[in-house]
Amino acid sequence: MQLRSKDLLGIEGLTEQEITLILDTADSFREVSERSIKKVPTLRGRTIINFFHEPSTRTRISFEIAAKRMSADGINFTKSGSSFSKGETLLDTVLNLQAMQADLIVIRHAVPGAPGLIARHLDASVINAGDGPHEHPTQALLDMLTIRRNLGSLKGKTVVIVGDIAFSRVARSNIHGLVTMGARVIVAGPPTLIPMGIERLGVEVSYDLDRVIPEADAIMILRIQLERQGKIFLPSLREYSRLYCLTADRLRQARRDVLVMHPGPINRGIEIDPRVADGDRSVILDQVANGVAVRMALLFLLAGRKEMTMNQ
Amino acid sequence: MQLRSKDLLGIEGLTEQEITLILDTADSFREVSERSIKKVPTLRGRTIINFFHEPSTRTRISFEIAAKRMSADGINFTKSGSSFSKGETLLDTVLNLQAMQADLIVIRHAVPGAPGLIARHLDASVINAGDGPHEHPTQALLDMLTIRRNLGSLKGKTVVIVGDIAFSRVARSNIHGLVTMGARVIVAGPPTLIPMGIERLGVEVSYDLDRVIPEADAIMILRIQLERQGKIFLPSLREYSRLYCLTADRLRQARRDVLVMHPGPINRGIEIDPRVADGDRSVILDQVANGVAVRMALLFLLAGRKEMTMNQ
Amino acid sequence: MQLRSKDLLGIEGLTEQEITLILDTADSFREVSERSIKKVPTLRGRTIINFFHEPSTRTRISFEIAAKRMSADGINFTKSGSSFSKGETLLDTVLNLQAMQADLIVIRHAVPGAPGLIARHLDASVINAGDGPHEHPTQALLDMLTIRRNLGSLKGKTVVIVGDIAFSRVARSNIHGLVTMGARVIVAGPPTLIPMGIERLGVEVSYDLDRVIPEADAIMILRIQLERQGKIFLPSLREYSRLYCLTADRLRQARRDVLVMHPGPINRGIEIDPRVADGDRSVILDQVANGVAVRMALLFLLAGRKEMTMNQ
Repeated sequence: MQLRSKDLLGIEGLTEQEITLILDTADSFREVSERSIKKVPTLRGRTIINFFHEPSTRTRISFEIAAKRMSADGINFTKSGSSFSKGETLLDTVLNLQAMQADLIVIRHAVPGAPGLIARHLDASVINAGDGPHEHPTQALLDMLTIRRNLGSLKGKTVVIVGDIAFSRVARSNIHGLVTMGARVIVAGPPTLIPMGIERLGVEVSYDLDRVIPEADAIMILRIQLERQGKIFLPSLREYSRLYCLTADRLRQARRDVLVMHPGPINRGIEIDPRVADGDRSVILDQVANGVAVRMALLFLLAGRKEMTMNQ
Repeated sequence: MQLRSKDLLGIEGLTEQEITLILDTADSFREVSERSIKKVPTLRGRTIINFFHEPSTRTRISFEIAAKRMSADGINFTKSGSSFSKGETLLDTVLNLQAMQADLIVIRHAVPGAPGLIARHLDASVINAGDGPHEHPTQALLDMLTIRRNLGSLKGKTVVIVGDIAFSRVARSNIHGLVTMGARVIVAGPPTLIPMGIERLGVEVSYDLDRVIPEADAIMILRIQLERQGKIFLPSLREYSRLYCLTADRLRQARRDVLVMHPGPINRGIEIDPRVADGDRSVILDQVANGVAVRMALLFLLAGRKEMTMNQ
Repeated sequence: MQLRSKDLLGIEGLTEQEITLILDTADSFREVSERSIKKVPTLRGRTIINFFHEPSTRTRISFEIAAKRMSADGINFTKSGSSFSKGETLLDTVLNLQAMQADLIVIRHAVPGAPGLIARHLDASVINAGDGPHEHPTQALLDMLTIRRNLGSLKGKTVVIVGDIAFSRVARSNIHGLVTMGARVIVAGPPTLIPMGIERLGVEVSYDLDRVIPEADAIMILRIQLERQGKIFLPSLREYSRLYCLTADRLRQARRDVLVMHPGPINRGIEIDPRVADGDRSVILDQVANGVAVRMALLFLLAGRKEMTMNQ
């Protein structure tokens, strides 16, 4: 079996079978990173471009490490120090990269839909590494892998997503994925940060975190993007923390085996109590480890696609 | 046969035999990039430094991909984030790189002659990746490879170079190369952008693009460097486009098998009509693909030089 | 034998046996860089992060080259273009890197003790690539390797360190190492740049460079950090040069086989005369070559540690 699309642009539209294929493949690559020789020759001679139009640390490094562990040739390409200042269009830039026989382009871009736009014009595969507030599919896949590895399954599990649901690509991708996989999703946050009508995506809404915490198998804390919400929130950041910060007190109302998750980077003391972030229910660093495995799996499934087709 | 110099500082001074050697070698490497495993072990354990003192996207990435496909160890080194702010001289910097046993240094620098200066002080090979308005030899080689692969030969072909001839290192390198290879070169542009006495280089001059277009086997459009010419041109950018932009109308006056070339990045609608850039006579992306092959060939001919000498 | 610690945080605390082990190992790797195929498979599949929180050219590139020659997978990570602007703590950042199964983190940081802080929280190895004015252990090791390779031994040799002793991490690390290895160390400079009580570290102090030069087997010139001392010194930079610049005249008072050393980048004409820097007693570029060898040795001894333990 393989993915239907040459690209991973979002979780929306993936089938349960496709998500399962990615997670199963990632499970097998997770083991590679635990060896002392963390490398397989699978993608030797493939060219993968990491094209980050916005700053990123963990996602960029995670993709870079994934490419190296698959023995692919990776090229980093950020906005600064490039000829973007010379006014070339995004599409011309990626057509150039493809002309150099890139097999796969990983792109982060501030404009929602930019990865989809370029994917339509390229034969090379495209992975969306975050496009504005739209989607961040590899984050959702690593989150689902983390839940599945810790709880055995996604089906029937209750996941509470807390924070700025309206502008979070992490929330959006996770909602699509978790609902597809049969999980129950509750989004929790202040009314101003939860879009009207989100129930249509198959989720429940709560403005009262304390009420829904006892039902959670996993609590997924979103990052308060101070650089964005600060302007709106600063008068009430304290109020936000009072109602939605995952404190040790609040965690005591949860199931004893609940998972505490966060996509990083953490604002300690704002959306999560440091004792909770570092506590025994936290799987935050496990998410990071699973991120490398998910990205290795996607590089394999997409950049290794042609061979698989030929061998069928 | 091999190149006489350990360096590639410009096209000026290369013989027809040397250019032919580079193009023949590039032809054989072009095929490597079309495999699914785009990699040969030829330069394993060689150290190649990409030292870009000016921003660059396509040239830097093209060299980086070429090094990886030859299995060389490549190091990127740009001005920002380095100790240049600490006031070290260029020569001390490259002597340091050589002391780390770099085999080859690719350098882009704003000062004409900077690559030649360092080459004289180094045993390591130096490739000029563009030195101010002086030369950009790998661009000219990829342009010549593109013409030769599409038209079979350079000898006797008519190439029209359009735009800012005076300040273009691309034009300068191409003129030297094309004339050496027996092509007929016509430079076309407004009088202010064509240096007096350029006929001494063996080219013809025309201020009337429409008159020379029908004679062209290849039309090489130069980029209008808005960051430079803007100051001079802005009042008459529209006038420039009216007279020298390669439009669909203008192209209809050309031979049906004419090649449309551009070194990128393109200013769509200024020096070239988008329909022409994306049209069936455009070999712009073919140029990009040939760029990787030419750079692989040069890394092979220069960084692999010592072994070849020993094996003779 | 192996190093007692999983980390290299400083020279202070290393035993003579440990320093000798590192230098002996570096000696054997020095030879690798002199081959045409400068690469051994020793660290294939290991992940090494170069995390430079401050600008650096030679140290960063030296570590990067060392990792490639050991066949490790290296990741570069500088402050710019990362999510540091998002306010994550240093410790959270490195815990993330470790979660991606990094084997070793090379870190340069402006805050003294930052590498030690993270090392205590990580299972991964940490190498200090310079922490403010505290230590720069790999620089001291390459300096000691250079003396030992040129003079046969460190024991009993007289090393004169000239310049800003008070704020130099290079001086501090060298003092610890040279004293441990049985060398005699004289620090020379203006009283304002030599800390009170430095004799307790086992060194002699002189404010008169001319008096101690004849006794030197090696003269180690420190860089005048104009970006720091400029403010204090500028009225007297000329006076500094008059008293402490290593001129050709001054060098004539030294032993004929004295070594002239400098960690780079050089301020030609300020702390060292260009004729001396480029003269036949200068081993400055030899230091650079030894830097790669020392770093290969440390990557081997630290990142290859687990296997060595298992194989014992």
